[in-house]
Amino acid sequence: MERTRHQGMAKNTYMRWRLPLVCLLWEVAMIVLFGVFVRFGPEADAHWEEEKREMNLTSDIENDFYFRYPSFQDVHVMIFVGFGFLMTFLKRYGFGAVGFNFLLAAFGIQWALLMQGWFHSFKSGKILIGVENLINADFCVGSVCIAFGAILGKTSPIQLLVMTLFQVTLFAVNEYILLNLLHVKDAGGSMTIHTFGAYFGLTVTRILYRPNLEQSKDKQGSVYHSDLFAMIGTLYLWMYWPSFNSAISDHGDAQHRAAINTYCSLAACVLTTVAFSSMLQKKGKLDMVHIQNATLAGGVAVGTSAEMMLTPYGSLIVGFICGIVSTVGYVYLTPFLESRLHIQDTCGIHNLHAMPGLIGGIVGAVTAAAATEDVYGKEGFIKAFDFTGTYRTRTPSVQGGFQAAGIVVSLLMAFAGGALVGGSAAPQVPEDEESDVYHMHNPDKPASP
Amino acid sequence: MERTRHQGMAKNTYMRWRLPLVCLLWEVAMIVLFGVFVRFGPEADAHWEEEKREMNLTSDIENDFYFRYPSFQDVHVMIFVGFGFLMTFLKRYGFGAVGFNFLLAAFGIQWALLMQGWFHSFKSGKILIGVENLINADFCVGSVCIAFGAILGKTSPIQLLVMTLFQVTLFAVNEYILLNLLHVKDAGGSMTIHTFGAYFGLTVTRILYRPNLEQSKDKQGSVYHSDLFAMIGTLYLWMYWPSFNSAISDHGDAQHRAAINTYCSLAACVLTTVAFSSMLQKKGKLDMVHIQNATLAGGVAVGTSAEMMLTPYGSLIVGFICGIVSTVGYVYLTPFLESRLHIQDTCGIHNLHAMPGLIGGIVGAVTAAAATEDVYGKEGFIKAFDFTGTYRTRTPSVQGGFQAAGIVVSLLMAFAGGALVGGSAAPQVPEDEESDVYHMHNPDKPASP
Amino acid sequence: MERTRHQGMAKNTYMRWRLPLVCLLWEVAMIVLFGVFVRFGPEADAHWEEEKREMNLTSDIENDFYFRYPSFQDVHVMIFVGFGFLMTFLKRYGFGAVGFNFLLAAFGIQWALLMQGWFHSFKSGKILIGVENLINADFCVGSVCIAFGAILGKTSPIQLLVMTLFQVTLFAVNEYILLNLLHVKDAGGSMTIHTFGAYFGLTVTRILYRPNLEQSKDKQGSVYHSDLFAMIGTLYLWMYWPSFNSAISDHGDAQHRAAINTYCSLAACVLTTVAFSSMLQKKGKLDMVHIQNATLAGGVAVGTSAEMMLTPYGSLIVGFICGIVSTVGYVYLTPFLESRLHIQDTCGIHNLHAMPGLIGGIVGAVTAAAATEDVYGKEGFIKAFDFTGTYRTRTPSVQGGFQAAGIVVSLLMAFAGGALVGGSAAPQVPEDEESDVYHMHNPDKPASP
Repeated sequence: MERTRHQGMAKNTYMRWRLPLVCLLWEVAMIVLFGVFVRFGPEADAHWEEEKREMNLTSDIENDFYFRYPSFQDVHVMIFVGFGFLMTFLKRYGFGAVGFNFLLAAFGIQWALLMQGWFHSFKSGKILIGVENLINADFCVGSVCIAFGAILGKTSPIQLLVMTLFQVTLFAVNEYILLNLLHVKDAGGSMTIHTFGAYFGLTVTRILYRPNLEQSKDKQGSVYHSDLFAMIGTLYLWMYWPSFNSAISDHGDAQHRAAINTYCSLAACVLTTVAFSSMLQKKGKLDMVHIQNATLAGGVAVGTSAEMMLTPYGSLIVGFICGIVSTVGYVYLTPFLESRLHIQDTCGIHNLHAMPGLIGGIVGAVTAAAATEDVYGKEGFIKAFDFTGTYRTRTPSVQGGFQAAGIVVSLLMAFAGGALVGGSAAPQVPEDEESDVYHMHNPDKPASP
Repeated sequence: MERTRHQGMAKNTYMRWRLPLVCLLWEVAMIVLFGVFVRFGPEADAHWEEEKREMNLTSDIENDFYFRYPSFQDVHVMIFVGFGFLMTFLKRYGFGAVGFNFLLAAFGIQWALLMQGWFHSFKSGKILIGVENLINADFCVGSVCIAFGAILGKTSPIQLLVMTLFQVTLFAVNEYILLNLLHVKDAGGSMTIHTFGAYFGLTVTRILYRPNLEQSKDKQGSVYHSDLFAMIGTLYLWMYWPSFNSAISDHGDAQHRAAINTYCSLAACVLTTVAFSSMLQKKGKLDMVHIQNATLAGGVAVGTSAEMMLTPYGSLIVGFICGIVSTVGYVYLTPFLESRLHIQDTCGIHNLHAMPGLIGGIVGAVTAAAATEDVYGKEGFIKAFDFTGTYRTRTPSVQGGFQAAGIVVSLLMAFAGGALVGGSAAPQVPEDEESDVYHMHNPDKPASP
Repeated sequence: MERTRHQGMAKNTYMRWRLPLVCLLWEVAMIVLFGVFVRFGPEADAHWEEEKREMNLTSDIENDFYFRYPSFQDVHVMIFVGFGFLMTFLKRYGFGAVGFNFLLAAFGIQWALLMQGWFHSFKSGKILIGVENLINADFCVGSVCIAFGAILGKTSPIQLLVMTLFQVTLFAVNEYILLNLLHVKDAGGSMTIHTFGAYFGLTVTRILYRPNLEQSKDKQGSVYHSDLFAMIGTLYLWMYWPSFNSAISDHGDAQHRAAINTYCSLAACVLTTVAFSSMLQKKGKLDMVHIQNATLAGGVAVGTSAEMMLTPYGSLIVGFICGIVSTVGYVYLTPFLESRLHIQDTCGIHNLHAMPGLIGGIVGAVTAAAATEDVYGKEGFIKAFDFTGTYRTRTPSVQGGFQAAGIVVSLLMAFAGGALVGGSAAPQVPEDEESDVYHMHNPDKPASP
């Protein structure tokens, strides 16, 4: 006992310097790399007047900023308030959820700007950034926030940062394979963000499994006000999801269409979530955890297809199915995963992101395969799937096949990456002082909140 | 006693299946109707490139999406976070307020897209939707959220859904009469949303009156954190109201003007609310319920006239008056309505929506009647009131008369519709188990929060 | 004792009428002044069609509304929700913080529209307003919200209103001197908003110093839920700060660039805040107060330079430094200011606004002085610094000098104004009944929240 405490103190001293050092060194590295590589893109650079002339643009309103900035801000709110507050429904992790989500996202977006920049915005030795890069960086850390939902309460801040570093890197590689090599469409990220992020996190939490965590299950209960805080997260995710799925779609009809499809899917999803939550609960009451989570599955599941001609009723069908799948997952699958497969999925991301993400990938593949020039118009068809250059001759059914391949690649990358990160992280968790290490400091925190 | 419990159990079993069945059947009906009727409008359809050529548009930025999407998202936040959280100030109804508001709004927007679509966007057998339809659907369920404020804590979820179905239907009919038959202007919905919604809800709550509810009055008290949650609702409604009143106004000056007028009216309203709240309270303290509600009356009351040349000082005057009327209503009128007229107005919507809505209708009528070509300019005059085609020869004073008629029609529709819904709903409330039926499930809810 | 209570009762009766009277008289004055002076600008006026023809604009989307309205709404949220909720981290002042912030801001924006209008939008006897005026009015009261953070819990509502009246007036004068006389750039207000607002508030709180306030220090502790509410404020400020710094920049690249620079600076700031918070706390834990406040310093410190070619890595460096300065300030400087200089800075605005504001002014001066035609392009250079007309021949280094002069002027105005307001306010605080006077009424507030 005495020895443990001693170790604990040494550990604490060690910890005291480790987090600051990691943060500072990381940030210095970012400054150096940004200094070498990152510059303003032509629409954010002071040479814009010349650019306008060259591009034959007649007005400043043609700057991409005005096409995407409102959506960017909505996505920003989803990442920081949405994901952060969604996780506050757990009794003990309110601070940690919001605070560490904040930390990892701020840490991750910088690295994401670099990684995605090297792959997609690299021109004559420089990464040229604009508002679309900011959205993509937010998307990228979105996948880390998702994975964080599985391991909430089981890792130290440093492990989170290490995970963020690795996951952002792999995200960018996976995204490059899908978007550039397979020429797959995934504007709302059903595959790149949700499927990848969720299975990455689930793999990590499987490896970090420790049986004694089950004893502290009561920590995972919710309290009255926590539930209202979590509803803030839920509602902002739900309301702004149309912006999420449309943020990086093509200008004009594609952004417009993506917003409408997502709106419809989410509305349908609420109804079936309530139906199945009520049906599967004792006494027919509603379970707040379902309302807080499963209602969002409809947004995840149209992530790939929202910008396609999925049509409003197609979106309703997708939302209908996902509300059911997600709620049933919370009731039956999460306990099964924990007891049999030893996957402790703290926030139930398997139900909110993993399964709906897979469905989203499949719906995208089917919608792409079913596309016709009749439905899209000759020009619209080419524009929607970017069937130009090398891909001039690709047919819808071939596109559908590549979309499906995108799902498989995302899954494999997630499993491999999660195993790597989980394996390297496992030994560093000091089991006897977890509560010391990964909660934020709050002098007045009541013993039994 | 034993019999009651027995009935209760049977009832519960019944309830357990009724809510899921209603939700599922409803959603299936939506899918079928959307499949038959709803398609993307030209600005969201993949044929947009052809549309652009036909309309002679030179840029994707001319897509209505970019004129209205930011306002749409603000309105969306008002409906789901604004109305939902505003009602959390009541001790016992925090969950129910946010959760059921979420459910009824998600349920209602789908039906609203159809009903409003049949009346306004029906072309060759299809409803063609775009971002303006989404805003209008949100507006429509806004009127249901308002009515919900009067009956909060007195109905089961199923009754709420039935009310939503009826109210959305009547809303669309009333809106059609006003906008198409009477050719009335009401961009911010003083008449169609607030007057109609509030008197609808007040009629329903009058019919559902049960004396014993008064005993549980303590449930209607507020607690510290509830008040802060409610302030989230208040502030989002207050901040985004300029978007609400300008969201569907004509492009250009009308949207711009509506936002400015609303901003001014709301600012003035805060000052007079504080003045009268302080004056009418013992010891000169402020009552949070006034701050949370009456400060918003200024937004309601410029709903009709905001897009007209009301002018900034005209808006200040309207806000000045409404802050007073609404606060005085909370102090004197709400207790009177309950004790004498047996109208239990849980959230005080008579003060926030009904009276300011009526004022808004009147201000709109007067502002329209006072319009001159001098103030609006020749083109601006015709554009502002859409005096084209059949209405080419309508004069401002005639327009004022029709505006006034719109108020009366909205009131009659609200009374008739509310009586119908209230009458059919009344017998279904099981008085002895209300707390079981219409609160969401929360295992940790303390006995006395 | 008896006498004191008697005085208290008389005082209360007096108070009961004073706040209402101030609010009502003020609002009447606003209506009269708006009636005489304020009209719609050409882009919000119904004559817009004619304006469009004159300006040779081909589309309604060229209306300034579409360039700035989304940013305006974000700024609006920062002022009312951001600043309001940020201050709820203090145990006793949750209501007061949000409610009085609401009151003073609604009060202040009307006066700001007039004051700033007279200086900047006055044409042939009228103030012509548009969306940019609304943003500027919000900015102006932003500086009052900042000052409020220093005196939170030490003043009555009436004193707050008097302070708002004076501070808005001085703000407009100072802004006029900087922007028009010194021809200084300060789009995000490092000097005009943050430096001025913070030193104004600190001067007031210095003068209002009362030793016995230290006894009630426990009121300044935080509680679990208060911290989550405060995080709402923090996150909305953090997320929307790119909108704040870009809201009134030139159309096109300047707005785009300002958003990117701010995004980068804020991300870096989070990392160094966490590093230093962890390093300086016992046991290496994080202090929520640092996370809630110091993470925002990066946004303040690029307020002047964000629209310039600061470059992304330049922004990272600024954010890096400010996270450190601000956190160290909370740990060492705030206690020192209180114990030695008798400056009770309730919310620590010296660390969040004063020092980062000064840094922001300096960074702006340096960035301006370092500007070259090569980096900005010939046209971009002239446009960025508005080197036209009288200022046609001004060089970057001269501009840098004037920027530096702007800092000094802002400081002097803040000290002088704060001394004036603090001096006149001091005698009116009834020390023995403070808790009665400046807390909002909440019947259910528990004795020990």
